[in-house]
Amino acid sequence: MEAVLISIGTELTTGRVRESNSSWLSRELDDRGVRTVMCMTVPDSRDAIAAALTRALDLEPELVVVTGGLGPTADDMTTEAVGEALDLRLDLDPEAERMVAGAVGLEGLDHRQRKQATMPAGATPLPPAGTAPGYLLRYRSMPIVVLPGVPWEMRRMWQAALESPLLRTALERAVPSRRRRACFYDSGEARVAEAAENAFAGLRDQLQPCICARYREVTLELSYPAELEAEVEASFAAIERELSEWHYSAGEPVEAVIAGLLSGGNKTLAVGESCTGGLLGGAITRVSGSSAFYLGGVIAYHNEVKQKVLRVRGEILGKVGAVSEPVAQQLALGARSLTGADYGVGITGIAGPGGGTEEKPVGLVFICASSEEGDMVERFDFPGGREDVRAAAVIAALHMLHRKLLDEIDQE
Amino acid sequence: MEAVLISIGTELTTGRVRESNSSWLSRELDDRGVRTVMCMTVPDSRDAIAAALTRALDLEPELVVVTGGLGPTADDMTTEAVGEALDLRLDLDPEAERMVAGAVGLEGLDHRQRKQATMPAGATPLPPAGTAPGYLLRYRSMPIVVLPGVPWEMRRMWQAALESPLLRTALERAVPSRRRRACFYDSGEARVAEAAENAFAGLRDQLQPCICARYREVTLELSYPAELEAEVEASFAAIERELSEWHYSAGEPVEAVIAGLLSGGNKTLAVGESCTGGLLGGAITRVSGSSAFYLGGVIAYHNEVKQKVLRVRGEILGKVGAVSEPVAQQLALGARSLTGADYGVGITGIAGPGGGTEEKPVGLVFICASSEEGDMVERFDFPGGREDVRAAAVIAALHMLHRKLLDEIDQE
Repeated sequence: MEAVLISIGTELTTGRVRESNSSWLSRELDDRGVRTVMCMTVPDSRDAIAAALTRALDLEPELVVVTGGLGPTADDMTTEAVGEALDLRLDLDPEAERMVAGAVGLEGLDHRQRKQATMPAGATPLPPAGTAPGYLLRYRSMPIVVLPGVPWEMRRMWQAALESPLLRTALERAVPSRRRRACFYDSGEARVAEAAENAFAGLRDQLQPCICARYREVTLELSYPAELEAEVEASFAAIERELSEWHYSAGEPVEAVIAGLLSGGNKTLAVGESCTGGLLGGAITRVSGSSAFYLGGVIAYHNEVKQKVLRVRGEILGKVGAVSEPVAQQLALGARSLTGADYGVGITGIAGPGGGTEEKPVGLVFICASSEEGDMVERFDFPGGREDVRAAAVIAALHMLHRKLLDEIDQE
Repeated sequence: MEAVLISIGTELTTGRVRESNSSWLSRELDDRGVRTVMCMTVPDSRDAIAAALTRALDLEPELVVVTGGLGPTADDMTTEAVGEALDLRLDLDPEAERMVAGAVGLEGLDHRQRKQATMPAGATPLPPAGTAPGYLLRYRSMPIVVLPGVPWEMRRMWQAALESPLLRTALERAVPSRRRRACFYDSGEARVAEAAENAFAGLRDQLQPCICARYREVTLELSYPAELEAEVEASFAAIERELSEWHYSAGEPVEAVIAGLLSGGNKTLAVGESCTGGLLGGAITRVSGSSAFYLGGVIAYHNEVKQKVLRVRGEILGKVGAVSEPVAQQLALGARSLTGADYGVGITGIAGPGGGTEEKPVGLVFICASSEEGDMVERFDFPGGREDVRAAAVIAALHMLHRKLLDEIDQE
C-alpha cells in the first residue's frame, strides 16, 4: 500500500518554519505497512496546492494525507484548492460549524470561523484539536485525509482519523512489513555497507537494506516480508557479531539505551555543560522516566560558574583555558560531587562562529565521562556550524557515556 | 525565478530522519529572490527519483536542487536516476576521482569510491565537504545542482556551488524581493490577520501577506517589490502600533531580542530548569555571543538537586509539590543567587506522558522570571506530547523574560 503526503504553507517553502509533519506521518504509515512514495511541500497558493494534489493522484496512491492551510485567514486556501482539484462543490458543513463553535466557545461564527467549517461536498469533518476541523474524503475509493498544519493538532487529529471506518478499512489492506534495525557508532558507513552486502548476498533481489549516517551514528534498516524472518534474523545476527565493537542498539536512540543501563544498574547521572548550554540534559530528558536516574546538572557557561559551582580550578582555567581536557574532566567530576551522582559527563568546546583560534579552532570539543572507576576524556574536532557542533557534541557525549556504562554496569 | 527542490532518502520517507535540507535551501533561495514552488521527498529508488526529476522539469522551474543519495553504498542511486531522467551517459570523472582520493586519503579507489566519482556526462564536480563530491549540470539552460544529503556537507557545498559561473549567472536573473516581518506573541492569529487585512486593504491584489502561528508566536511576513517600499513600511508601522502590546521583533527569534536587551543593559542571566532539562539554556545559547550575558544555570531535575543546589525549601516541596508556583519562583531565585545573575528564570512542570494527576495534569507548567525588582510567575497548560510541552515551555519562558526586560531595562 502506497501513500503520498502533501504539506502546505508558504512558511515552509520559504524555510521560515521547518516542515515536520511529513516525517511524523511517514513513520506512522511505515509502522502500519504503508510506504510513503512521495512527500510534497508547496506554498499557500491555490494553484500550487491543486497542482500538487493532481500530481499526487497521478501517482495512483492508495492514500493521500494533506496537512496545513486550514486556518482562519485568507492565505489559508487548502480547502478551495482541494475543491478545485477534485471538482467538488464547497459547503458550510453544519457539523463542522458546531465543532468550530464548540472550540471557540461562541454561538454565532464570523466569516473566518465559517470558512473553517466549509468543506468539500461529501467530506466527513474531524473534530478540531485547536480550532480548525479537518476532514476525510473518499475519492475513487481512495481516502484523502485533510488535517491542520500545527504539529500537535495534526497528530491528535490523525489518531481520530484512524478511528474512522473509511481509513480503518483502507488500512486493513496494508500488510505491515516487519522491520529490523541495527545501530552502530563510529564504524563508518562503508564498514556497515560491506557487512550488510555479505550478510544479505543470498537475498539480494528480495531485500533493500537502507543505510543512513548522521553524526557518526550509522543505522542499518531493513523492511522485509514476514516469511523471511529467519533469514533476516540470521543475517542481522552475523552483522552484529562482526561489528559488535560499534553496535549499540536495535533502533532505540542512544539516550534510551543509557536510560535502560542506568535504571537497570540503579545508578545515577549528572552533567556539567559549557558549549552545549543544556542540550545534553535536554537530550537525556527526552526519555520519559529519566527522572529515575537523572539527577540534573549545571550549565557552566561562564567561567565563574565553572569555578564557583563545579569547583573547576582557577589556575587551570588560567593556564590551559576553559576549552581543555582538564576542564572537561573537572566539569564531569564537579557535576558528580555536587549532586552525588554515580556518573558525570562534562563538555567544553568552541561552538563558533566566533571564538576560534589557530590552536583552538571552532569545532574543538573536549568531553569527559566520569565515575568512581575512572575518567574517559576525548578530544573532538566537529565540522559544520554552531548548531552542528553542539548537536555532534551531545551525540558524542552520549556514546562515550554508553561505552563507559557497558564496561562498568553488570547486566543481567 | 522559481526553484524545485528534491530530497532523496528512504530514511526520510520512513520518518526515521527528519528532512531538513529543503527548509534550509528554500530560505537561502528566498533570500536571493528565488521562490521555491515545490519540495519533493522520495525514497532511495531509481524509479522514484527519476519520476520526481521528470515531474520537477514539468513545472518548468529555473533551478533544481537535488540532495541526498550520493553515498558509497548500493542504496545510493541518485546519480543513476539523474542519468536516466535526463538521458545522460554516466562517466567516471577524473577530477571527481582526484577529489574523492584526496578526501579519503587513498591513491587507488575501490568500487564504492569510484561510484562516488561517477557522474552524468557534462557535469562539473563540486569538491566534497565529507567524502562525496556533488555536481552541477546544465539542462536546457537550467542549472541542476546535485549535493549530498548530510546537512553540513550540503550547506558547505551549496556555498561552493554559488561560486560557479553556471549558478552565478542563473541567480543574476533573480530579483530579490524585499521582505518585511513582524512577530507577535500571544496575540492570536486572527487579531494579526484582521490588522493586516485592514492595513493592506488598498494593496490587496499586489501583495500576499503570510501569517504563521507556532507555540503562541504569530509571524506576519510579506515579500514585496522594491517600488512598494513606502506603502509597505507605512502599513507595517500601523500594524505594529495597533498590536504593540504583543509585538516583539521584526523577525529575530525572541532569544536574539533578549540577547540584545541583556547585552545592551549590561545585565546577566541564569536559569533553573526542571522539566525542560536544559532546553531553555540550549535555546538561549543558540545565539552566538550569548556568553556576554548568560552565566549558566542548574538543571534541577531531581528534588535533591533543587534543594541542595538551588535552595528550594524542602517543606514547600512536601506541601505543594515540585510542580508549583513557589517552586518555579525558588528555582529562578536560586539560579540568581547561586550565580549572581541579575535575571533568573525557573521552570517546573509535567512534560508527560506519565506523572500527570487530575489536579496536576500533563502539560501543567509554572514559569518564573525573577529580578531584583520582583518576580513574575505564570501557570500554563500546554497541549500536545512530551516534546511539545517542553518546547512550548521554553518559548513561554523566553517571552516572560522578554517582557520583564522591556519593563526594567532602559533602552537608548
